[in-house]
This record gives sequence, structure tokens and C-alpha cells, in this order.
Amino acid sequence: MPAFSRLVRFLARNGKVYYGDAILPQGVTDIAQTKKARIMTGDIFGKHEVTEQVADVRLLLAPFALEDVKTVRCLGLNYELHAKESGLPIPKYPVLFYKPVTSLAGPSDPIPVHQQAQQEQGLDYECELVAVIGKTCADVSEADALKYVLGYAVGNDVSHRDWQLARGGGQWSLGKGFDGWAPYGPGIVSSEVIRDPQTLKISTRLNGKTVQESNTSDMIFDVKKTISFLSKGHTLLPGDLIFTGTPSGVGMGRTPKLWLKDGDVVEVELEGVGVCTNKVEFAKESAKL
Amino acid sequence: MPAFSRLVRFLARNGKVYYGDAILPQGVTDIAQTKKARIMTGDIFGKHEVTEQVADVRLLLAPFALEDVKTVRCLGLNYELHAKESGLPIPKYPVLFYKPVTSLAGPSDPIPVHQQAQQEQGLDYECELVAVIGKTCADVSEADALKYVLGYAVGNDVSHRDWQLARGGGQWSLGKGFDGWAPYGPGIVSSEVIRDPQTLKISTRLNGKTVQESNTSDMIFDVKKTISFLSKGHTLLPGDLIFTGTPSGVGMGRTPKLWLKDGDVVEVELEGVGVCTNKVEFAKESAKL
Repeated sequence: MPAFSRLVRFLARNGKVYYGDAILPQGVTDIAQTKKARIMTGDIFGKHEVTEQVADVRLLLAPFALEDVKTVRCLGLNYELHAKESGLPIPKYPVLFYKPVTSLAGPSDPIPVHQQAQQEQGLDYECELVAVIGKTCADVSEADALKYVLGYAVGNDVSHRDWQLARGGGQWSLGKGFDGWAPYGPGIVSSEVIRDPQTLKISTRLNGKTVQESNTSDMIFDVKKTISFLSKGHTLLPGDLIFTGTPSGVGMGRTPKLWLKDGDVVEVELEGVGVCTNKVEFAKESAKL
Repeated sequence: MPAFSRLVRFLARNGKVYYGDAILPQGVTDIAQTKKARIMTGDIFGKHEVTEQVADVRLLLAPFALEDVKTVRCLGLNYELHAKESGLPIPKYPVLFYKPVTSLAGPSDPIPVHQQAQQEQGLDYECELVAVIGKTCADVSEADALKYVLGYAVGNDVSHRDWQLARGGGQWSLGKGFDGWAPYGPGIVSSEVIRDPQTLKISTRLNGKTVQESNTSDMIFDVKKTISFLSKGHTLLPGDLIFTGTPSGVGMGRTPKLWLKDGDVVEVELEGVGVCTNKVEFAKESAKL
């Protein structure tokens, strides 16, 4: 059982990075508003404790360091209206794809758009509930599935539709795996705090205007079905993330299409968790090593 | 520049696991024949050295420990005759998919077939050259690409065609990602030893009979093109593996179909590297935790 309520990883004013339990003002549930946190010690996935030491939070980072995450699984077409707007059939089984760990980013990081993804239009947003695995498991029953969840975050499954679809050869991997294209956070709300992940409002705002608005109750495969299914013959590890699919309202599903452009600000929000705010930044030149 | 010629990870007779540089008898190039190795110390991806200490090799393990590998990338349809036997068009760009790190296994491990993948026929083999990234890189030119390769192994991209295709909703992930479905090894031959990865015979034997036989010269996108393409906007990390696609002769492409069954022995071989030998083991019941 996690000792924290709202796990954050942050840069403190002393210049060091800590795990902490967010301290939120009365009535505030958006973890992005965290100004102070109780420092945590130990192993997030094992023995750990929330200390009495309070730190000022200078910057919220992605909830996990890169080495804490082994696999990022994602579901496609897990909301009925989104499957319809994509012109694809309602899936009979969960549709699985992966993102590389290098696509992970924090709740206020920019979304870097490499020149390779600037060539055609098609850059899109997808708000998603992210379930975080806390304990090693395989062949989990639906009844037991939520026992293996550490907590929940909100994420943006940033996608380039042309690379995902036409140029990807039918596989969605390339158009969804660019560096920084899976921002998530702003923290992880313990599964002791969110007992039922299927009752949460989820939405996206683009430059302040709501473009996706739904509820996790609309998922085709809920979190417990998803974990049970994905764990059949596949071992899930502590720190594994599951992006559980996006509701309708993506740019691809609109007439006219609504593609992200340089400078756009995308906010994805999950009730009881908070907001991830990421600015689209078209790269002027290739990354330097 | 790697200090080793043929990197192996092994269980020694003293019960400890080491990295080592394989010592092969004169005229032998199959790393699977390794009986002795010089013990290596340090960081395989950084400063490391091959010591004078020789150990007896009791068992060859997967060349890397699970925590050494961040991402397993794979190409689909990268040999023209295989694309044709699959009934799919020759790709214009490399077709990327991922396997989870939990699918990795060693050169003599069984291939566990979970009950979920026993329900329909469709279990298949795919011999592949595996390129191993040695240094962090992004946006690499084709001319520079091979400088970032630590070495080469041979791997088997085990696939269940029904989960990969019909039941996977078009995404290949689920039917290729079961635990243990990416055996590779038997070791990693340094890129100083294999200067040109496009001249190597590659083959599969099923119960001793050759079923795939080709040469890496037949790849549509060679290793340097593949690395350059995959690194555009995607950072590749030390220990990342790239399975570069399989030639024709898979079970799905045959008349009648040739599906793997319980007890079958599959050998995938790459010239100058060696043989991975894995026995198909249908699980009698679900894994116990």
C-alpha cells in the first residue's frame, strides 16, 4: 500500500530532485498547483515513507525518472465515439501499442516537434487516464487487477496522424514515439485515494478552448479489464505505465481538421489528479548531441 | 570502441553471473559453443576491460540483463520476399513496432506459450539480425550510423499470427510481446569484428530442417538506413536493440501453413555470430507469481 496520497517528483529550491507527497491547499485537487511537498525516502515500489520534512517545489518533473519505467503500454480506440470519429470498428479486444520510454516527459515540458514531423499536417492531442503499475504481476484476474495499481496520472498521447497511419505502414508506433510525445503527470494519485478510476471527468483544452470532454466511465475496456487482459502471458513490472485511450474530439476527427501548430498550448486534465500543460515547440534544427 | 570481440553474459561454474569475452576454439564462430570466456569488468557501454581471468561457462544467458535494455525496436516487412509472402506491399518507409523488454530471453531458453496463445493456430518463427546500440544518439546520418552500433546478435521475433493480425486490431504488438518471445544471442559480436552487417547468411531450422535461408544483403532498409531513420526525433540509448526484420519462409507464408507446436525446436542462425536454439513449451497452466 503506497504511503503517499499524491506522488510528485520535483526539483527543490536547493537544486536537488526528490520524490514527495504533494501538499495542496484546502479545496485544491490539481497537483500542478503544488508549491510544497513532504519529502519521501526509500523505494517508491517497495518500502518507503513520507517524512515530516517539507520542501519548496520549484518545478514538477515527470513523476518517474526514466530508469523507473520499463514499458509504456497504450490502448487505441478505447472510447466508442473516438473509434467512430476515427472511422475504425469498435474493437473486440483491447488494441495495444507501445511508446518508448524516451517519449515520456513532465507536466510542464514542451512538446518538441522534430522536423520529420513538421513535413505534413497531422499533429494531434489525446488526453488519457494513465494507470501506473505498482507491483509485478501476470495473469491477473479482473477482480484482483486494481490491487496492482500504484495510482493514476493524466497523460497526452501526442500523435502525428500521417506517420501513425499512411506512412507508418499500418503500425502506429513511429507517429506516436517521438522524444517527449508522452507528457504525463502532474503527479500520481494513489489508488487508495482514487478507489474507482471509472468515474472521472477527462478533458483537453487547446489554447484555453475545450476540445475533448468525457468521463472515464465511457471506456470500452475499463482499467481492471485492461490490466487483466494485458497481463495474460505478459509480466507487468513496477513503474509500467498504461495509457488507457482517448475519448472523442481529437483534431483528426473534426471537420475541418484541427492540427497542433507551433506555440499551441495543450492542457489535458483528469478529475482529482490535475492538469498537464505542454506547449508545442517546432524544432528549428535537428537535435545536437 | 568495445574492448571485446564476442560479448557473452554467462553463469559460471562458481554460480555467479559475469560478462565476458568468449574464447572459441580455432575455426569455430558459433558463440553458442562457448565453454570458456575472459571475464570483463566495468561498464559495457562505457569504460570496460577484458581481464586475463578465464572462467568456465556453465550457461549462456541473454547478452544483457533486463535493466540494460530500454527499448526493443523491430522492423516489419524488411525483406522483399517476406513482404510478398505476407500479402503486404513493399514498404516505402521502415515499418516500426516494439516488443516489451519482458519478451527478451536467452539463447537456450524455452519459448513459453501461454494458454492465451494456444487457443488458435498461428505460432510462428522469424530469424532476424539484431543491431545493438552502444552509444546515445539521435538524428544520425546514414554515413555515421554504424559508429553507434556496439555489435550484432541473432534473434527470433516469435509471433502469434492470429493475435498479431485479426485479434490485434491491426497492431502487431500483442501477438509478438508475450514473455520470452524475443530470444536473442548467443552473444554480441563487436562492430569491430563485423564491419559490414549486410553480407551475412541468416537462417532458421525447425526440428533440424531449414525453413528460412537468406542473406542480410537482401534487406530493403539496411542497418545504417534503419538507424538513421529510427533516430530522427527519437533518441536511441545504449542497450537498445533493433530487430531488423525477417526473410521469407515463415510458417504463415507456406502452403499448408506451418505452425509451431509444443516441443518443437527452433534454431535461428546468423553467420559469424552463431545459433540461438529455443524449444517451444506450451504452458500447462497460468504462471504462478
